[in-house]
Amino acid sequence: CNYSSTYICFHFVNAFPLILLDLLPAKNGEEATMQFLLELVDILTNYVRKSFDRSTKVLDFHHPHQLLEGMEGFNLELSDQPESLEQILVDCRDTLKYGVRTGHPRFFNQLSTGLDIIGLAGEWLTSTANTNMFTYEIAPVFVLMEQLTLKKMREIIGWPPGEGDGIFSPGGAISNMYSVMIARYKYFPEVKTKGMSAAPRLVLFTSEHSHYSIKKAGAALGFGSENVVLLSTDERGRVIPADLEAKILDVKQKGYHPLFVNATAGSTVYGAFDPINEIADICEKYNMWLHVDGAWGGGLLMSRKHRHKFSGVERANSVTWNPHKMMGVPLQCSAILVREKGILAGCNSMCAGYLFQPDKQYDVSYDTGDKAIQCGRHVDIFKFWLMWKAKGTIGFEQHIDKCLDLSQYLYDKIRNREGYEMVFDGVPQHTNVCFWYIPPSLRGMEHNSKEYREKLHKVAPNIKAMMMESGTTMVGYQPQGQKVNFFRMVISNPAALQSDIDFLIDEIERLGRDL
Amino acid sequence: CNYSSTYICFHFVNAFPLILLDLLPAKNGEEATMQFLLELVDILTNYVRKSFDRSTKVLDFHHPHQLLEGMEGFNLELSDQPESLEQILVDCRDTLKYGVRTGHPRFFNQLSTGLDIIGLAGEWLTSTANTNMFTYEIAPVFVLMEQLTLKKMREIIGWPPGEGDGIFSPGGAISNMYSVMIARYKYFPEVKTKGMSAAPRLVLFTSEHSHYSIKKAGAALGFGSENVVLLSTDERGRVIPADLEAKILDVKQKGYHPLFVNATAGSTVYGAFDPINEIADICEKYNMWLHVDGAWGGGLLMSRKHRHKFSGVERANSVTWNPHKMMGVPLQCSAILVREKGILAGCNSMCAGYLFQPDKQYDVSYDTGDKAIQCGRHVDIFKFWLMWKAKGTIGFEQHIDKCLDLSQYLYDKIRNREGYEMVFDGVPQHTNVCFWYIPPSLRGMEHNSKEYREKLHKVAPNIKAMMMESGTTMVGYQPQGQKVNFFRMVISNPAALQSDIDFLIDEIERLGRDL
Repeated sequence: CNYSSTYICFHFVNAFPLILLDLLPAKNGEEATMQFLLELVDILTNYVRKSFDRSTKVLDFHHPHQLLEGMEGFNLELSDQPESLEQILVDCRDTLKYGVRTGHPRFFNQLSTGLDIIGLAGEWLTSTANTNMFTYEIAPVFVLMEQLTLKKMREIIGWPPGEGDGIFSPGGAISNMYSVMIARYKYFPEVKTKGMSAAPRLVLFTSEHSHYSIKKAGAALGFGSENVVLLSTDERGRVIPADLEAKILDVKQKGYHPLFVNATAGSTVYGAFDPINEIADICEKYNMWLHVDGAWGGGLLMSRKHRHKFSGVERANSVTWNPHKMMGVPLQCSAILVREKGILAGCNSMCAGYLFQPDKQYDVSYDTGDKAIQCGRHVDIFKFWLMWKAKGTIGFEQHIDKCLDLSQYLYDKIRNREGYEMVFDGVPQHTNVCFWYIPPSLRGMEHNSKEYREKLHKVAPNIKAMMMESGTTMVGYQPQGQKVNFFRMVISNPAALQSDIDFLIDEIERLGRDL
Repeated sequence: CNYSSTYICFHFVNAFPLILLDLLPAKNGEEATMQFLLELVDILTNYVRKSFDRSTKVLDFHHPHQLLEGMEGFNLELSDQPESLEQILVDCRDTLKYGVRTGHPRFFNQLSTGLDIIGLAGEWLTSTANTNMFTYEIAPVFVLMEQLTLKKMREIIGWPPGEGDGIFSPGGAISNMYSVMIARYKYFPEVKTKGMSAAPRLVLFTSEHSHYSIKKAGAALGFGSENVVLLSTDERGRVIPADLEAKILDVKQKGYHPLFVNATAGSTVYGAFDPINEIADICEKYNMWLHVDGAWGGGLLMSRKHRHKFSGVERANSVTWNPHKMMGVPLQCSAILVREKGILAGCNSMCAGYLFQPDKQYDVSYDTGDKAIQCGRHVDIFKFWLMWKAKGTIGFEQHIDKCLDLSQYLYDKIRNREGYEMVFDGVPQHTNVCFWYIPPSLRGMEHNSKEYREKLHKVAPNIKAMMMESGTTMVGYQPQGQKVNFFRMVISNPAALQSDIDFLIDEIERLGRDL
C-alpha cells in the first residue's frame, strides 16, 4: 500500500510490465493508462508532501557538467529508441530529485515562490483539457473565465465599469511590451502599417530601478534602447517626479516626442512604489500614456491595508499585474489590463480569415486571438480562477497581509542587529527587505574604503553558494547602482512562518561567520 | 471503490468534509491534501478515459450567454468569500463538462489535437515543480533538457554540429517574431540601441498563404505591416521563387532594403511547403536572412519518408518548429532555432544585474533569461523531453507517417466521390485536405454563378454549426483568397483511425444533405 494514510489506499496488484503501446489511445488502454498516471501521481504527491517538510532540503545542488555526465542512471540525452515506461517513471522521480523545491517553506529566491494546492489542481486540470485560448469555439469556459476575471481586476484597479479590456500574456515582460505597443498605437496608429518612420522620434520613460523589460520592449519594438530614458529615484528607489518632468522637457527641446511613462508599483529589488498620482499629473500635462507595472506589486491591490500604495492607479492607461508572483498562482499567469476598450484589438488585429471566421454560429466577439500578439495561447486563467473561487477575494487579502507582516518581522529583527546593515532606511513598502550581512572580520572597517567594499561585495555570493551546496534555504542577492552585492529577501511563499525567517538569519550567520 | 479495475483500487473511507485551511501548508495538512488531489485525479482520469471513448461527445455546446447565466450550479462569477472544497471539485467537473475534448479521436478542428498520455504526465510534473526557466539556479534539470533538446533539433535540421542556439517560446507567433528581431539585429545591430531610424526602410517577404504572425511581427516591431510584402503562390499554395525575386528587385529599386524572407514549411490552410532551396538561392544572392516557418510542418523533419519536403532547410538562418502541433506535445511547446551562435543573446540581452549575477558559483552561461524577450519563462521543455524519451525519435516518425497515411486515405476517399470537390489538385504535402462538400441541391449548378458561390460559401459554416450543436466531431473551415468557405481537414491526432475519417465524411453528408 503506497499510502499509510487512514483515508486513502492504493493497491497496485500487479508489478509494472507496461509498455507505451498499452496506453491510450490503444484499444483497451484504459487500465494501463490509469495505472501509469496513478504511479506518476504517487511520485508527484510524495514530492508535494516532502516539499512542505522542513526536514527536506530545498535543493540537491549539482553543477551543469555533473548533471550532463549523468547521475546514477539519470541520462538526459535523447535517443532514437524508446525507453520503458518504468524508466520514464524513474526519469520523473530523478527530474524532481535534482530540481529545486520552489514550494519549500524556506525557498525565498524569487518573486514567485510557494506551491498553492488549489493552483496546482488548476494546472493539472488545464493540462488535461489541453486547449487553446484563441477562440471561444475550443475554449468556451476558459474564455469566459478570462473575461470575468479581467473585469474583476479592472474593478479592483478602479476603472469605470463597462469599459476596458485586457488579456493574459506569457509573463510580465510581454505584458509590459503590450503596454508600449498600445501606447504607440493610441498616439501614432499609422506606425502599425507604415512603421516607426511614420512617427517622430518617440521616447519612453521609466525608473532606473524598474524592470529591464521596458528597455527590452524599447529595443524590440523599434524605439531603440537609447530612447528609453531612465529616471532618477530617491533613496528608497521611488521615481522623483521633478526628474521626470525635467527629462520630458529636455526630450521635447530636442524635438523628440515623449510618449510613455512606466510607473513601477513594487520594484524588483527594493519593492518600491513610484508616486502614481504625481506621475499621472505629469502624464496628463504632457498628454502621455501612463503605464503602471504592478507585476510584483499588483497583489497589494487586494489588501485594504496596503492598496494605498497604488494610490492613483485608476488614472493609468494600462496596468501589468502578475498573479503568479505575490498572489501565489503557479507560473505563468500575467495580465495586461487596459482602460480603453477596443484599443487592444485595434493595435494587434490582422483579421486572419482562416482562424477567426465572422460567420460562426456564436457571438464571435468572444474570440480573443486577434487581440493577442500570439496566435495559439496557453490557458493561464483556470488555476487563477479556481484559486479565487477557493480563497475568495478575502483569502488573497489575508495572504498578502500575512506576507507583509512577515517581512516587517524580518525588518524589525535585523535592523538593529549586530552584523546587519539595511540598504535603505525605513519599513519596506513591499515584502522586499534588502540588507548586507557583515561578517565579524569586516565589522569596524572603514565603510568607504576600497578594501571593505571589495570584501563586502563577495560576502553575499559566498554565503549563497554555501547555502546552495548545503541546500538548506535560498535567497537572492545582487548589486544595485553603486551598492555592492546585498541580500534581497522577498516573501510571497504562503508556507513561510516566522520560524523560517529565524532560520534564514541563523543560516546566514552560520555560513558567513568565518568569511 | 472509485475504480472497478483489477489493478487499482481507491478507498475514500471518509466523505469530504475538508476545508481549504486543512490543506498544506497547514500543519498536518498532508492527508487532507492527498485526499483532495486524489479526488481531483479521479475527475481528471475519468475525463481522460471518456475523451478516448467514441461514444462520448466531442463537446456539449452552449452559447456564451448561456454559460454566463450559469448552468445548473456552475457559476463563473468570482466573489469575496471562499467556496467549499467540495464545490471546487464540482467546478472542476463542470469546467471539463462544458469544455471541448481536444483529445477525442474525432476532434480535427485545429493543428494541435490529441492528448498524449506521456505529455500529460510531463505537464502534471511540470506544474508540480512550478519553476522558471530563466536561470540554471532554479531550473537546473530543465535548463539542461532544453539545451540538449534544442541541440538535437538543430542536428535534425542539419546545421553544423557545435554551432547554433535557440529557445522555447510561448508559441509559433512569438518564435516567428524572434526570427524577425534576430534578422534585424544581424544586419542592423544599431537598431537595438537607436531604433528603426538607424536603418533604411526594411522590407520582409512572406507568402500570401503564410501565417499572419509574420505580418503581426512586422507591425509590432516597427517595420509596419505595409513593409511586409506578400508573395504570390502557385495553385498548391507554394511561393513562386520568380515572384520573390521580382519583388525584391522592385523594393530595391524604390531604395528600400530587402531584409528577410520567410519560407513556410507547412502552411496553415493548404499545408504547402515553399521551395526552400530556390528561396535560399535568392536569399544568398541578395544577402538576406532566410527564416523557415515550420511551426506546423516541423514534425515532418523526423520522418525519413517526408523530410524531403524540407529540402534546403539546412541553409536557413532560423527555423520555427512547434512540437505542440504535429508531434502531439501538449500546448505550449514551440522552438525558435538559430544557426548562428551568440546572436540570440546579442539581440536580446540587457544584462540585468539583479537576475543574472556573474559571480555565481556555477557556469552562468547556462542562465537563459537574457536571451529571451521574456523574463520569467514557463517550463515548456519537460513534457517534450519526456515524450521523446518514451517514444524515441522513431516513435515520432511513426506518428507522423501514420497521420500522413490517414490524410492520404481521406484524400483517396473523397477526391472522386460524388458531392466533393478538392480545393487544389494532387496529394496534399501535409495532412491538410481541403475540400468543398456540395449538397445535392447545389450539384449541377453553374460553378461561376454568383448564386452558386454565395450558397456554397454558407455550406461549411452551416454544417460546422450543426456539428457543434450535435457534438459529434469538429473540423475547421475558412475562405482563402477568392475561394469561398471550404473545409480544411487536418490530422495530428494520434487517436484517429480510418473509421474516424469515415465517420467525419458520413457526418458531413448527414448534416449537409438537405442544405
